[in-house]
Amino acid sequence: MVQVIDIIFVGKLIHTPSLGTLEIEDATVGVHQDETIRFAKSHHMLKNAEVHVLKPLQFFFPGFIDTHIHAPQYPNAGFGIDLPLLKWLEKYTFPIESSFRNLDRALEIYYRVVTRTLSYGTTFASYFSSLHTPASALLAELCFSLGQRAYIGKCNMNTLSPAHYCEKSCKSSVEATNVLVSFMSQLDPNRKFVSPIITPRFAPSCTKDLLKACGELAANHDLPIQTHISENLGEIALVRELFPDRKSYTDVYDHHSLLTPKTVLAHAVYLEDEEIETIYKRQSGISHCPTSNAVLASGMANIRKLLDAGIKVSLGTDVSGGYTPNMLVAIRQAALTSRSLASVLRDSRIALELPELLYLATQGGAEVLGRGHEVGSFEEGKAWDALVVDVSSETNTPVDIYERDTWENILSKWVFNGDDRNVAQVWVNGKLIAGTECKIEDTSLLNLNLASIYMNTLTSPEKKSLRLQEILESFTKTITLPVTQCVSDGKVHAEPWKHSVEREDTIEPKSFERKQFLRST
Amino acid sequence: MVQVIDIIFVGKLIHTPSLGTLEIEDATVGVHQDETIRFAKSHHMLKNAEVHVLKPLQFFFPGFIDTHIHAPQYPNAGFGIDLPLLKWLEKYTFPIESSFRNLDRALEIYYRVVTRTLSYGTTFASYFSSLHTPASALLAELCFSLGQRAYIGKCNMNTLSPAHYCEKSCKSSVEATNVLVSFMSQLDPNRKFVSPIITPRFAPSCTKDLLKACGELAANHDLPIQTHISENLGEIALVRELFPDRKSYTDVYDHHSLLTPKTVLAHAVYLEDEEIETIYKRQSGISHCPTSNAVLASGMANIRKLLDAGIKVSLGTDVSGGYTPNMLVAIRQAALTSRSLASVLRDSRIALELPELLYLATQGGAEVLGRGHEVGSFEEGKAWDALVVDVSSETNTPVDIYERDTWENILSKWVFNGDDRNVAQVWVNGKLIAGTECKIEDTSLLNLNLASIYMNTLTSPEKKSLRLQEILESFTKTITLPVTQCVSDGKVHAEPWKHSVEREDTIEPKSFERKQFLRST
Repeated sequence: MVQVIDIIFVGKLIHTPSLGTLEIEDATVGVHQDETIRFAKSHHMLKNAEVHVLKPLQFFFPGFIDTHIHAPQYPNAGFGIDLPLLKWLEKYTFPIESSFRNLDRALEIYYRVVTRTLSYGTTFASYFSSLHTPASALLAELCFSLGQRAYIGKCNMNTLSPAHYCEKSCKSSVEATNVLVSFMSQLDPNRKFVSPIITPRFAPSCTKDLLKACGELAANHDLPIQTHISENLGEIALVRELFPDRKSYTDVYDHHSLLTPKTVLAHAVYLEDEEIETIYKRQSGISHCPTSNAVLASGMANIRKLLDAGIKVSLGTDVSGGYTPNMLVAIRQAALTSRSLASVLRDSRIALELPELLYLATQGGAEVLGRGHEVGSFEEGKAWDALVVDVSSETNTPVDIYERDTWENILSKWVFNGDDRNVAQVWVNGKLIAGTECKIEDTSLLNLNLASIYMNTLTSPEKKSLRLQEILESFTKTITLPVTQCVSDGKVHAEPWKHSVEREDTIEPKSFERKQFLRST
Repeated sequence: MVQVIDIIFVGKLIHTPSLGTLEIEDATVGVHQDETIRFAKSHHMLKNAEVHVLKPLQFFFPGFIDTHIHAPQYPNAGFGIDLPLLKWLEKYTFPIESSFRNLDRALEIYYRVVTRTLSYGTTFASYFSSLHTPASALLAELCFSLGQRAYIGKCNMNTLSPAHYCEKSCKSSVEATNVLVSFMSQLDPNRKFVSPIITPRFAPSCTKDLLKACGELAANHDLPIQTHISENLGEIALVRELFPDRKSYTDVYDHHSLLTPKTVLAHAVYLEDEEIETIYKRQSGISHCPTSNAVLASGMANIRKLLDAGIKVSLGTDVSGGYTPNMLVAIRQAALTSRSLASVLRDSRIALELPELLYLATQGGAEVLGRGHEVGSFEEGKAWDALVVDVSSETNTPVDIYERDTWENILSKWVFNGDDRNVAQVWVNGKLIAGTECKIEDTSLLNLNLASIYMNTLTSPEKKSLRLQEILESFTKTITLPVTQCVSDGKVHAEPWKHSVEREDTIEPKSFERKQFLRST
């Protein structure tokens, strides 16, 4: 059968299909729906295709994959660098997360998080939401609507958390999770764009029965899992105290069937050799969060050791332990941390090189999220999740390119000095969804009915009747968000992202001015 | 005598007048010529004053002081992270620096460096130039003309350097330095804006007689000194080998009278206790360069230990060991390095807190450069070297401010997520010279006559006659650079920076299109 090509991309293409491999080539790539076709093949495929040729200092790069980011902590990004993990959670993190019981607030912040991460070129993120099912459902809606691939995890946490921000029981935590899973199954039945991810916050915030239940939830629904591990010495001591029967932090998770080939373990700073062995056996992956580890003075993870052991490693921004959702900063800090650790341990092999770092931020992330065959690089047959990076002087960014610069130098200059101004286009699954060249052209509206989300995700019938009036007063609004119509070089390259939200229970929608809460994108 | 106020600034004012002190206040500040007057004093002072009121999310902050930056290495910023110091010098650094024998190239790059550092808010920089006197003179001209305070050091290096980039003798190095000193004495006789700085590159690149001569040059002309110290283990071993009679790296400099109260020692990663004691006694200062130290895997400097010993410490971007001339990045990396080191050494006191970091980048820099009484903070009587930082959403930067944010949070968010887009205005000595709100309004031209600079700074008469034709062909151009006329809110707040360059030996000036080599600022 002849494959029809929808778009042909022509230009410099850079990617890291495997650890340590950097490919820089002049490429012609066809994209048909959700498939990338590498070719200089038959011309009859090209009929009707739109041709998209890059400018001289533009290049294609795979979309970034952020495997660890706490969406509700975003308002705290950039401050609170004065405390270690457990005190930091108490002073800064739990208070901000608990405010996400308010769905208006969740909409404001989550819209910002998704558009910000997209502006930095994150095409796939694994989000921790708060413990609230409605806000988590809203985050899923936003990602799906704005076109970002995402795993969305409602935190499971029923112990050792403040009274105002703690689930009442294992049962209610499981119930709330099931509601989110069911909600998201309607949203994206194939989990191609958004998928739930089971998210026991970390061992200390879960009772043993909840850890066990989380393992079962993941197994029953065939879902990925994300949690934290071995981030900080105080935390590790606490886990030892709480789980005296278990050999190690890793063993706590392993014992409760939480280590699977689709498990993302964030941090992994202080793993013992035996733990590394177990994680390798289970084929679970690591999200290395170097910025957060430095900010919270957690420690310096030896990533070379994990890679040598054959473990899958990826990068996470870990907002707001990390101060920015910009994956380029995660790459930089991974470079700097590894090089500093190399100097401290006097072993130059520990230093991570640029091709390795770029792999961690793209294909490595895809592998850790169990989607290495679909995204993360430009191999034949994968989805076209791509950035067009622009380092020309017109972008007016701090990246200064000179005549003598090789493409390796240009790439490195972008990694170390680039920012959102260099992300000209962000493509997900063959659709242009963001970037500086992606203009909002019309006012096509997406209706997000907060009341509807809230009603559909309430877990307890009593609550519903008791608080209905309050809910309706707070949340019965039809929010209008802009959908990007995608234009580049004056030509429409792709249709706007289409997703119609239809709910039956819209109750007297009020209009809500965007400018009241949404800052310009 | 009644002091006349020229401008009154009203708005949030933030500074760190001493180590660990952070002042955030609603202030009214008068500026008369080069003096800052803190007041709520008599109203008759205000007659004729222009009032400048900040917007809600703007604040005043002292201009940044970068105490260690290699101007000719700027084209390499952002690549070359694969080698340790000595190999890095050989592969990347000496080749780029040696190209500054070409004055056209120097003009292109140095214009970029000065405008870039200004765009980031650096009001005072201590530059290493290359070993070339003409290019160094040009850098001085550019800083003086564009309004940036600067120390300009021509590298002294007559040994252990590649043949194509090494001075022939101690004598020729001293001669070339004297020419620069003399040139700059004409340019700015009071050294208020630009001053030469004696710059023995580092101990291994100088013969003993040159080290001695450098000490004498500094003493005879009452000049500051800058060099490198104890950056990398390989370098330290080399110094030990080259100077077997000296007790330590520090002792090499001390023995040659290079440690003065106006000496800037860059890096200082591995100082022994005895060296710290000597540096303290000599009242010399340190330029901490955390980004460079991480990139080159040099090591992690324990700044707390130096501060505890009473040593003056400041921050340097160390381009291109550091990948950016953005001082905010130096602050961030100093935070992250200190916090990582705190975790590695399990001593939380090592972590540098935000007020300390901001001090290092401003008042600390002024102290190290011997100008602590003139600039670095907003104390009474100092020069108005100030930034107007803007973190409002109109700047469209990654700094997202929310209603609940305190001013401490806002400050921290700027430090960690801000960039050049937040630098609305840059003032030096009461004149507005740069920033996003500083528009080029007319085409007032500044003539930089390269031939003149070249002729006036040639050290050897024979060279002059031998190469005159070549020189004239290469460099006889009148370059036209824009002078910023400073406008904010539609009002002219200050006159354009005035500096007329008049040379007698202008030879058939050709016009030179700015767009040929200067990228948009």
